[in-house]
Amino acid sequence: MLLEHINEPKDLKRLSIEQLEQLASEIRQFLVEKLSVTGGHLSPNLGVVELTIALHYLFNSPHDKFIFDVGHQSYVHKILTGRMDKFDTLRKYKGLCGFIKRSESEHDVWEAGHSSTSLSAAMGMAIARDLKGDDNRVVAIIGDGALTGGMALEALNHIGHEKKNLMVILNDNEMSIAPNVGALHNYLGKIRSDKHYVKVKEEIEHLIKRIPAIGGTLAKTMEKLKDSLKYAIVPGVLFEELGFTYLGPIDGHNLPALLETLQQAQNVEGPVMVHALTLKGKGYSPAEADSHAWHGASPYKIESGKMLKAVGPPMYTEVFGSTLIELAREDDRIVAVTPAMPGGSGLLKFAKEFPDRMFDVGIAEQHAATLCAALASEGMKPVYAVYSTFLQRAYDQVVHDICRANLNVMFAIDRAGFVGPDGETHQGVYDIAFLRSIPNMVLMMPKDESELRHMMKTALSYNEGPIAVRYPRISGQGVPMDDTPREIPIGTWEVLRQGDSAVVLAVGPMIAAALEAAEQLSKEGVHLRVVNARFIKPLDTAMLMQLADENIPIITMEEGVRLGGFGSSVLEYYANQNVYGLQVKVLGVPDYFVEHGSVKEQRTEVGLTAEDLVAEVKSLVPRKRQHA
Amino acid sequence: MLLEHINEPKDLKRLSIEQLEQLASEIRQFLVEKLSVTGGHLSPNLGVVELTIALHYLFNSPHDKFIFDVGHQSYVHKILTGRMDKFDTLRKYKGLCGFIKRSESEHDVWEAGHSSTSLSAAMGMAIARDLKGDDNRVVAIIGDGALTGGMALEALNHIGHEKKNLMVILNDNEMSIAPNVGALHNYLGKIRSDKHYVKVKEEIEHLIKRIPAIGGTLAKTMEKLKDSLKYAIVPGVLFEELGFTYLGPIDGHNLPALLETLQQAQNVEGPVMVHALTLKGKGYSPAEADSHAWHGASPYKIESGKMLKAVGPPMYTEVFGSTLIELAREDDRIVAVTPAMPGGSGLLKFAKEFPDRMFDVGIAEQHAATLCAALASEGMKPVYAVYSTFLQRAYDQVVHDICRANLNVMFAIDRAGFVGPDGETHQGVYDIAFLRSIPNMVLMMPKDESELRHMMKTALSYNEGPIAVRYPRISGQGVPMDDTPREIPIGTWEVLRQGDSAVVLAVGPMIAAALEAAEQLSKEGVHLRVVNARFIKPLDTAMLMQLADENIPIITMEEGVRLGGFGSSVLEYYANQNVYGLQVKVLGVPDYFVEHGSVKEQRTEVGLTAEDLVAEVKSLVPRKRQHA
Repeated sequence: MLLEHINEPKDLKRLSIEQLEQLASEIRQFLVEKLSVTGGHLSPNLGVVELTIALHYLFNSPHDKFIFDVGHQSYVHKILTGRMDKFDTLRKYKGLCGFIKRSESEHDVWEAGHSSTSLSAAMGMAIARDLKGDDNRVVAIIGDGALTGGMALEALNHIGHEKKNLMVILNDNEMSIAPNVGALHNYLGKIRSDKHYVKVKEEIEHLIKRIPAIGGTLAKTMEKLKDSLKYAIVPGVLFEELGFTYLGPIDGHNLPALLETLQQAQNVEGPVMVHALTLKGKGYSPAEADSHAWHGASPYKIESGKMLKAVGPPMYTEVFGSTLIELAREDDRIVAVTPAMPGGSGLLKFAKEFPDRMFDVGIAEQHAATLCAALASEGMKPVYAVYSTFLQRAYDQVVHDICRANLNVMFAIDRAGFVGPDGETHQGVYDIAFLRSIPNMVLMMPKDESELRHMMKTALSYNEGPIAVRYPRISGQGVPMDDTPREIPIGTWEVLRQGDSAVVLAVGPMIAAALEAAEQLSKEGVHLRVVNARFIKPLDTAMLMQLADENIPIITMEEGVRLGGFGSSVLEYYANQNVYGLQVKVLGVPDYFVEHGSVKEQRTEVGLTAEDLVAEVKSLVPRKRQHA
Repeated sequence: MLLEHINEPKDLKRLSIEQLEQLASEIRQFLVEKLSVTGGHLSPNLGVVELTIALHYLFNSPHDKFIFDVGHQSYVHKILTGRMDKFDTLRKYKGLCGFIKRSESEHDVWEAGHSSTSLSAAMGMAIARDLKGDDNRVVAIIGDGALTGGMALEALNHIGHEKKNLMVILNDNEMSIAPNVGALHNYLGKIRSDKHYVKVKEEIEHLIKRIPAIGGTLAKTMEKLKDSLKYAIVPGVLFEELGFTYLGPIDGHNLPALLETLQQAQNVEGPVMVHALTLKGKGYSPAEADSHAWHGASPYKIESGKMLKAVGPPMYTEVFGSTLIELAREDDRIVAVTPAMPGGSGLLKFAKEFPDRMFDVGIAEQHAATLCAALASEGMKPVYAVYSTFLQRAYDQVVHDICRANLNVMFAIDRAGFVGPDGETHQGVYDIAFLRSIPNMVLMMPKDESELRHMMKTALSYNEGPIAVRYPRISGQGVPMDDTPREIPIGTWEVLRQGDSAVVLAVGPMIAAALEAAEQLSKEGVHLRVVNARFIKPLDTAMLMQLADENIPIITMEEGVRLGGFGSSVLEYYANQNVYGLQVKVLGVPDYFVEHGSVKEQRTEVGLTAEDLVAEVKSLVPRKRQHA
């Protein structure tokens, strides 16, 4: 085993090429074994084994800066920088982070969980280096999927203009998480497949030598022609036009080729792009065969390649997907739009049944939102399926293009609330705060998977502007499903359990905790009323006024940030109505970034469990009332 | 006068080319005259006179859809669609909107004030058309500056992939608002200047005909060569590679050329790009000479080309610019980053003194934010100068790259609050709500231009994470300026006027209104305490607890949305501290989009004037207290 002798990057530098290749093989085995227990981003990491080895072999981290786009492909980097022994805790509470984490290692210089930030980061580091008169290299490693994100293209434009020394490694595996889409992808595909790009170069040089007799008036033209040909025969003409020196494409699993090209790239003045072709899942046949499914793997059996799926009620995501098909069969104005998450958003079956009404636009959250605005302005019923955390990328488009114009766009916001092992970069805890302050927005969250169906029906029947349904990453409650989705009156809540000691206005998954707390409290003579606050905006103002009349202590409970969230909207309402003196307590996510772990651990950490609610109710309800 | 007979687009279709050219000249005269009184986006509109005429002449609006990117260049379109008589009210309260406005005309099909949305909009309309089986054309008109916005590039990628019929007119005037930057701009420049692109095409065809003798084994190579040459000699190879048919470049002021090329473009299957070269300010020599200054013009004298500048105290923007220079002289870690607003953000002098520390990244708000994050991670002190409304584009980057990593980025948020005549697309009223709910963020707003200097010093001395200063578009208060900027203790407010009947916690420009109200109220025996709530986050909790002890009625007042704003944070604080029974009233922008007009009119409309505050205080303060 070579691997056990690698504690830091300099240990690599003593190895021969053959040993590096052996190391690659050992790392693959290590990853396949470890991740079979913990789960994690298997296929992206199997795809960058040689690339990561080559980088650490040639360059000197942390003096030289490696910037991993998204960072879920940094496991090999973590292994090579002394974190091999922590892989049993991967993505677990207080354990090894599944992304780059600056607090873990000096070799981790840029954190990201969202895609397409690496080029901006590289540019910033290159500028800082030059201003400080330093000499380190800056290397961004970005996938072809991430390259379609608008901010990556903005950065390309800036990098090509400023001409600073920096290296971009285009890790081209023809995939983002889902198979890639877009014209840029088609362009890269042409480079990959079209061998003539390389051959024609030699042949044209040969040809040019053979036509000396033409000369004369055409001499100048020939010069210009050669100049033009330089572009025509370089496969990366598009990147060359944008100011990069383009090298490639090369086989990203061929270590000697990688080392040679990276060495060549080192000597280029200005921005250089190395185009490496890699295979996601390389070396583990189940992952090679379906790298999409193995992007983020659950624990699995190594031999069979069978992932161990949790048994239980359907995920909200699945219920969304199947209900959308039902509703789309009845209304041909319904179309689905997703930014590169057809699988994660539960839209694969929809895409199969309605290929013409399904638009996967690639990693392009902003474009997706404004595309929906335009579809709605022409009378369609677009459904924007997106994760809460990625909707952040489209905030301006939601404000400016959708809500301002008050267009009938439905938002299907998946992964709302805590997301578990992906951790702080992916927590869906801001959307309530940032969406409810935008005029015209209606925002809902269901108490269970059956209510999700009703909310979707409600959203797609609503004709007065934008409307959003948010739902969690977790499985549903396992409730029986109502057959026919029906509309819920906008702005109405429902009382799920009566009680007159206090009332909890609970949102989404907090309802289960609230019901559990009510059950516990009832044994102590405290009667907690539980309300399903299914509309986060607009509020059920009739019920709020009734609660004010009762003068009952109120607790709000949501898996979203406390600052500016649903609870604040209740406070605002009473202040606006000149209702003073009510006891209102807001439970939500406190003002810091919550790290990875299980959802349960995350809820416990921030005080969003049934026990926390019990304690809160007891502190609010006067003794006498508790025993009334 | 032909112009007075043009009431709708079909009136154009009767005219000869010569008459259309005369019409263009009349429209220019009309614009120069009208805008000399009202002000407005003069130079962009002078640049698109022929283009807009050609579009309405050839196509059939509103059946065919014209999508103007940003929409400030839609004046000619408004003239040609029956709104000539409304130009006296341009950008005035309840008057003609300075942007596309669907409620004004059926010819206005896509509204925008932020740039780079038109390609997504065009794609959405093309998809809707095809799904509905309709046959209308979709034409997006986008400037070269707007093309660098990430969402436009995301859309290009999608359009080139789906191959729907739609037309993009690249209105290339070498400018966004400021002179354009970026590799894409350099690329377009090469097309514009490099005449050989066109000539070489003919010469190469000639050349190829003259080398038949070569033949044989090279025959296949020649075929491939021709194929490659197709790319080399087409100037728009970059766009062709992305799936567009590229036509141009053409002179955008030559009506016959425009009409011919647009007609040709009509017959292209799939996406087509027409590259038109235009001159901003065309036909009015002062605007041609400095189209940057004339982008958004104040009223001016036509003959002299002198703009009538309001006389008064310096704008906050200017104070920001001069103070930044002062501070940057003392700290060479300070760098400035702006997304295409070097002038609007007051950074022109800074750029002159510190060219190496100034980064105008083009219209690229997302990249700008993450660039700042990387600069900060390497020990620099980046200052992100941006308008409040455009910062919305970088919301995710602020959350994910800056605040999550807790990096020392200073935000200089200009145009915070109401912006006046630009209206609803540009109101800076969301930033308090969306920034304060992000962990680690410090958010300030000064009471006057002198305090802005202290806040900048505070921000650039702060080493514990991101910190933002927001300031209004308007002129300062005309206060004497303190010589030396000094640090303000984080999270402290100041009492500007004593009083014990009630207290107003006022933010930024609301302080002036509060002081005025206090003065009025004092004459009636009501003593309003006025607090400069200069830290929006963190709150001055010591003062808040003291107010709770006093049990004094509290009014919060901010020029930002009421839902989730500063006022809500005061409510949250008391709820969190179990302080119940206090009278707290929140004044802010209500939950709808506020249209164009003067800032004063906008404040009056939503109830944010001294008079409103007087009425509010009287309603809160019990009679006895009023006469105490």
